[in-house]
Amino acid sequence: MKKKIVPRPWFFPRPVVLVTTRDDSGKDNIITISWAGVASTTPPMVTVSLRKSRHSHGTISATHEFVVNLPTSKQIHVVEMCGTTSGRDSDKFAALGLGKLPPAVVAAPLIAECPINLECQVRHILPLGSHDLFVAEIVKVHAQHGVLREDGEINDNALDCLAWGSEEFLKVIRPRKQARVPRFL
Amino acid sequence: MKKKIVPRPWFFPRPVVLVTTRDDSGKDNIITISWAGVASTTPPMVTVSLRKSRHSHGTISATHEFVVNLPTSKQIHVVEMCGTTSGRDSDKFAALGLGKLPPAVVAAPLIAECPINLECQVRHILPLGSHDLFVAEIVKVHAQHGVLREDGEINDNALDCLAWGSEEFLKVIRPRKQARVPRFL
Repeated sequence: MKKKIVPRPWFFPRPVVLVTTRDDSGKDNIITISWAGVASTTPPMVTVSLRKSRHSHGTISATHEFVVNLPTSKQIHVVEMCGTTSGRDSDKFAALGLGKLPPAVVAAPLIAECPINLECQVRHILPLGSHDLFVAEIVKVHAQHGVLREDGEINDNALDCLAWGSEEFLKVIRPRKQARVPRFL
Repeated sequence: MKKKIVPRPWFFPRPVVLVTTRDDSGKDNIITISWAGVASTTPPMVTVSLRKSRHSHGTISATHEFVVNLPTSKQIHVVEMCGTTSGRDSDKFAALGLGKLPPAVVAAPLIAECPINLECQVRHILPLGSHDLFVAEIVKVHAQHGVLREDGEINDNALDCLAWGSEEFLKVIRPRKQARVPRFL
């Protein structure tokens, strides 16, 4: 039996990522975003959506740049703080004691403690209603050695990434040894 | 220590969803998609990206409609088959013995065995390179009673959704009892 329910973005898993920005005055910020996903393979592109009221919305609209940092399940406190306070009022890097690593292409810093960092440049902005959709090209990827396999692919076991459920953070795990699946994308 | 690596869409978790379509001749199809995410809260919107060569790309471009069906970790064989064969050559519903449930708004059928189905209407199509990005409004949601809590929210424990890792399917779990997290989106 199925029930028809009010349309809401009940799409799962929803990722949880930390997006860093640097504004024109050199001030850095971090925002937690879950409305995000991969948009294209070549060029590699992602989408992130932000409410117009968000401080980071203004910075990304002005600079057309950001970094997507992937947190781990040990960083839930970071994700919560960066999602519930505004960069207008606080320096989240300082408050959380997070390290900054230099980017290669964009201005925004990488979060040192996140195992993967994607430097992104905005290619399209699409106003949708509550959120604007930023479609951005991944121009550089940084990865901790520990999350890379010998063949250069990502080690799914080491990644330990987060998702956002109905009202809770979820953990993404590799359930068991699987046969390699065909590339279907 | 971090390593700079070739830009690829190394963004995790990447969802795994089954997208159903009905073409103008009434033929139904299913395609597995991982390049997808939430785009907006109000109206509720998602993005899905498809290569131009895909059979479903033609159908969605023509009908501007589709259904996002969320598979569970018990449906990996469905996800694999629907991601590696073309609807040009096969009837995937019949081959997999999947049930169809009637939609409320769009023409494409719901996959009966998937716990959540999102009926979607395309609002924007953005060509990005290898993939075209379809931005679509969720116009109706269907959910199995088992995945709903008493308050009408989704039960994260019951959802059992899939993600796609580097080359493997991943399982999304609720790690432990958590305090309710604030709504930050």
